[in-house]
Amino acid sequence: MKKINFASDNYAGIHPEVLQAIIAVNDGPAIAYGNDEYTHAATEQLKKQFGNNAEAFFVFNGTGANVTAICALTKPYEAVICTDKAHIQVDECGAPEKLSGCKLLLVPAVQGKITVENSVKHLQRVGDQHAVQPRVISLSQSTEYGTVYTLEELRELAHFAHSHGLYVHMDGARLANAAAHLQTDLKTITEAANVDVLSFGGTKNGLMIGEAVVFFNSALAQSFLFIRKQHMQLASKMRFIAAQFQALLANNLWLNNARHANAMAQLLAQELGKIKSIRITHPVEANAIFAIMPKTLIEKLQERYYFYVWDESLSEVRLMTSFNTSEEEIHCFVRDIKTALTS
Amino acid sequence: MKKINFASDNYAGIHPEVLQAIIAVNDGPAIAYGNDEYTHAATEQLKKQFGNNAEAFFVFNGTGANVTAICALTKPYEAVICTDKAHIQVDECGAPEKLSGCKLLLVPAVQGKITVENSVKHLQRVGDQHAVQPRVISLSQSTEYGTVYTLEELRELAHFAHSHGLYVHMDGARLANAAAHLQTDLKTITEAANVDVLSFGGTKNGLMIGEAVVFFNSALAQSFLFIRKQHMQLASKMRFIAAQFQALLANNLWLNNARHANAMAQLLAQELGKIKSIRITHPVEANAIFAIMPKTLIEKLQERYYFYVWDESLSEVRLMTSFNTSEEEIHCFVRDIKTALTS
Amino acid sequence: MKKINFASDNYAGIHPEVLQAIIAVNDGPAIAYGNDEYTHAATEQLKKQFGNNAEAFFVFNGTGANVTAICALTKPYEAVICTDKAHIQVDECGAPEKLSGCKLLLVPAVQGKITVENSVKHLQRVGDQHAVQPRVISLSQSTEYGTVYTLEELRELAHFAHSHGLYVHMDGARLANAAAHLQTDLKTITEAANVDVLSFGGTKNGLMIGEAVVFFNSALAQSFLFIRKQHMQLASKMRFIAAQFQALLANNLWLNNARHANAMAQLLAQELGKIKSIRITHPVEANAIFAIMPKTLIEKLQERYYFYVWDESLSEVRLMTSFNTSEEEIHCFVRDIKTALTS
Amino acid sequence: MKKINFASDNYAGIHPEVLQAIIAVNDGPAIAYGNDEYTHAATEQLKKQFGNNAEAFFVFNGTGANVTAICALTKPYEAVICTDKAHIQVDECGAPEKLSGCKLLLVPAVQGKITVENSVKHLQRVGDQHAVQPRVISLSQSTEYGTVYTLEELRELAHFAHSHGLYVHMDGARLANAAAHLQTDLKTITEAANVDVLSFGGTKNGLMIGEAVVFFNSALAQSFLFIRKQHMQLASKMRFIAAQFQALLANNLWLNNARHANAMAQLLAQELGKIKSIRITHPVEANAIFAIMPKTLIEKLQERYYFYVWDESLSEVRLMTSFNTSEEEIHCFVRDIKTALTS
Repeated sequence: MKKINFASDNYAGIHPEVLQAIIAVNDGPAIAYGNDEYTHAATEQLKKQFGNNAEAFFVFNGTGANVTAICALTKPYEAVICTDKAHIQVDECGAPEKLSGCKLLLVPAVQGKITVENSVKHLQRVGDQHAVQPRVISLSQSTEYGTVYTLEELRELAHFAHSHGLYVHMDGARLANAAAHLQTDLKTITEAANVDVLSFGGTKNGLMIGEAVVFFNSALAQSFLFIRKQHMQLASKMRFIAAQFQALLANNLWLNNARHANAMAQLLAQELGKIKSIRITHPVEANAIFAIMPKTLIEKLQERYYFYVWDESLSEVRLMTSFNTSEEEIHCFVRDIKTALTS
Repeated sequence: MKKINFASDNYAGIHPEVLQAIIAVNDGPAIAYGNDEYTHAATEQLKKQFGNNAEAFFVFNGTGANVTAICALTKPYEAVICTDKAHIQVDECGAPEKLSGCKLLLVPAVQGKITVENSVKHLQRVGDQHAVQPRVISLSQSTEYGTVYTLEELRELAHFAHSHGLYVHMDGARLANAAAHLQTDLKTITEAANVDVLSFGGTKNGLMIGEAVVFFNSALAQSFLFIRKQHMQLASKMRFIAAQFQALLANNLWLNNARHANAMAQLLAQELGKIKSIRITHPVEANAIFAIMPKTLIEKLQERYYFYVWDESLSEVRLMTSFNTSEEEIHCFVRDIKTALTS
Repeated sequence: MKKINFASDNYAGIHPEVLQAIIAVNDGPAIAYGNDEYTHAATEQLKKQFGNNAEAFFVFNGTGANVTAICALTKPYEAVICTDKAHIQVDECGAPEKLSGCKLLLVPAVQGKITVENSVKHLQRVGDQHAVQPRVISLSQSTEYGTVYTLEELRELAHFAHSHGLYVHMDGARLANAAAHLQTDLKTITEAANVDVLSFGGTKNGLMIGEAVVFFNSALAQSFLFIRKQHMQLASKMRFIAAQFQALLANNLWLNNARHANAMAQLLAQELGKIKSIRITHPVEANAIFAIMPKTLIEKLQERYYFYVWDESLSEVRLMTSFNTSEEEIHCFVRDIKTALTS
Repeated sequence: MKKINFASDNYAGIHPEVLQAIIAVNDGPAIAYGNDEYTHAATEQLKKQFGNNAEAFFVFNGTGANVTAICALTKPYEAVICTDKAHIQVDECGAPEKLSGCKLLLVPAVQGKITVENSVKHLQRVGDQHAVQPRVISLSQSTEYGTVYTLEELRELAHFAHSHGLYVHMDGARLANAAAHLQTDLKTITEAANVDVLSFGGTKNGLMIGEAVVFFNSALAQSFLFIRKQHMQLASKMRFIAAQFQALLANNLWLNNARHANAMAQLLAQELGKIKSIRITHPVEANAIFAIMPKTLIEKLQERYYFYVWDESLSEVRLMTSFNTSEEEIHCFVRDIKTALTS
């Protein structure tokens, strides 16, 4: 029997409508490397979502999106301010440093979020030749802890950043989940954060392979074709990434997928909240739940479910829902917990 | 009306059996990042093709395969010997230098090929601290000019390389076409060249997205998981790349696709050979034809066909066939040439 | 009138004996790039100080020594554990990341020191392809806060490092001051720390320009000629760096200089300790004193003395002595403090 | 007995006036890292030589000057056009590629020189995302072959470069020798070449350690403090490099040194020209002579003289004069040649 997935939205497959879109564009030849009609149409779609100043480029994966974005924003002696839990800091095997040359300047995450208060100290050595020069604030929306910045929080960070000459990079691997939570459209979020460059996630929201780097600052986009190619993120048969994005953006599929994932997380959180020996450790706002539970329970559950032990020492796990998590899977999971706890 | 493709095997879509394989593995969750059953099965398949010492890792694209392979073989003060026409030299936007730190030491291509005679001079400064140290010979099989190294040529290069402490990297973006031409299996070629690391192409032979880096030297593979991730070539939903390779390797699809493309190139070469004002400039051994033809003819043809002008000054074009080039397309092309030349 | 220097041992000039040595080797030609008799003699001298397994290479400056050492120890996906106050972290403008590709994994400094307790957490993700792999512990002896690791502390760190497959890099820009404090020779320190590669400082201890990278692990040194050259740290007229080191190591000049600087720091600390409104914040063990003093006093003193305000918010200054700090300068400084405080 | 030096101007020591300048500034403390009065004075001196728009920064060595200059001019996907014999191509151990990320685009040297005719082809792929984008022409004045670009040649190259959006970098490790040959001042040369950034050599013309990077384009200089520091080329006791340059520029020492070296090269060339079995292979315009001579003669001479065999296969040597080459040394050399040839 296949295990049930609460490990990651990366364990989920391709959404049927996305798969259908791949099949649909497979007829006949198409110009390679992004100069085809499908890619043009998909970048137009992204303009509709994000505004006319949005220039989008497709890449393969999330690390690729984040790192090429950082390369476009920085020189090697500059630095990126992010949280100590940011994906670029902890899960990209040092790609940002190796490939951009930049140092990451860390601030302690507060419920996964960067705060102005924690960031200020990194401005102290602006102009000092011995120190890296901060140039970018990179924030994840939704965060690695399943929390979501409010529009007000984004506005405050954006104001702080731009008034100090910093660009705003948003790691939007799960931006759709944030929009669903905030009950707003994508553009409202990127405008609130006054984003310079966005990594817009596709894979975690139902694509097979594909992310978009979206520039809101035309000057910064000028070199991006070269940056993308040099960093090995240029797909030859680009139409197949473009078509996936087309499907995702058409008919609000992106939103429906995210809403569903979020709703499943809410349901799961609600159910877990009723169980005495389980404690949820972060607000559940997107599609992730962090919870402390008994070690023996974790071991038992791992036989039938995929999920990560997040912090061994705390006995904390991460549970993640996706576009194809079902209510039944959640009820099954909760039943198994209850059985295990009473046996 | 869609144009007909003689531009590149990259303009072709996904082979139906490959597409079917993607669809087939889309049921239920799978562990992300390559620790799933499909990826294990596909790497086993590659062992069957290349021998038990072959350790394969999937990446996104050809530049990704070449550059991560070079990173695995070199330190930044070392160098890669290749031809002045090699893909790594002319078509990867400087990715090898930027990402490995290494210099490329060029030899003039002879029908697209590297020769021992041309390579020897790059050994003169071994041990000299002021000079980069050659560590790798990188050869493309089949070459960028549609020619194919004979097994004897490969043996000679391999002997030269290994007797001088150089690794052999093979850019096998079109290795299948070479095998089809040589009427041999894949392993016979990599064994003749005593390859240390191979970039094994999938995309140009019918995949949607996917290449493999295959190590024949276990020690060199040890760091590759980290190199791949740090260089942004690790797919989260890896099963979908693996499944494509499974389909390609099952039932000799790789070979049939390559044979077909080569046969179409032969047919086209044969037909063009009959036309007086056209001169084929390189031996046609794989799926590319280089030909000099009148400028006015080129302009006329480009209205209906995709193909590249290779050397403007020589009025030389590149015509490339693929797994889904049809005889009819070739006859149509030839007819249009004849019509244009006589009108 | 020239200001008096408590800013840095970098503000001091060349020790007369070192200058004499430069003059002495300026007669006639010498082979360039380190293959001359003076360089051979100086590296032999370093063997005498550090043991026969010590292979030394001269470079220009401290950042050059640290970063080339790190490059020799690491691959780009690896990482260096150091304190959040380490010179490599805060004062090298991101050179370690840019040039080695590695991430620095920070531990909070405890009196300037790295501790095993704080380092352990960075081993949690060994083997995880998404995370950088720790390979080096870099510690500064003496530390950036003028404290000195005891031999016992070094042994503990060395044991921790090597039992977890980590190399030990010692930033010994002020190793001489540490040896003077510990009343031991240089080799006793590097042996206690089981150092793999040492950055051995010269400039801060009386040289004009020159540092040494000393390997205690022959295998690691093998590529260093190339690493040094590629990182632009190879002096053509090497004899003049070598001669300076010869002078420093002959007749215990290194030790006498360091003892003097340390003694002056003790004297200064003693005098400052008597002043009520001044609080010394770190143990004074080498040649640096950190002290909190009234802002108005700081401003007054800066008219006549060079020194750094270390932490504006705390009103903390750093005072540093050198080989040519005089007792008179200290008494003068203390007098001026007393005058200012009572006026 | 010491050998006589015809190997390199790097084998020569420190000019006495330069050494005197080092001694003269060794009194008392000076602010570190270039913010001292001596450094200010020396950069003012450089303005006098090169014009008021010249912003100079001192670095340690020639490779350091060239590579930091290239870093200031380029992004990693760009490229530098230079000859296949350029120092940056053949003698910097791949530092330009490793540190700037850029590819070097080679043109065959014509008497050591880059030509417009040979450079044009590298502009063919401007705008093509698969290809590196040329951004700099780097020329060496005088060249690695001891030849000197005429002002007219420089103007032509400068016009070509700037009309195609390329910057001009001049490797002026031996610019003084070029000026001496052209009987002009330094500024006339840099103006003719419309240089954006100059590597201005000191070490080869009598300094102990020290080169200058001189910007003629203020915008390009803005980041240079950080680039220099991050690339480990920032001297702490900067006054000692500055003082050397002061001495070099005062009283035309730079010119007198270069004139002397050139004159000695002329004398040597003249004498060698009289010897039948020796053939000079390049015009002797600066301080280097390339000559083919019998292998047995070479071996004999190497017992008493330092010089390099340049091309083993041609039996070609390089003989180089310096500020302290004496007429006597030349006559001695010529005598020994004659004796050897007749014995």
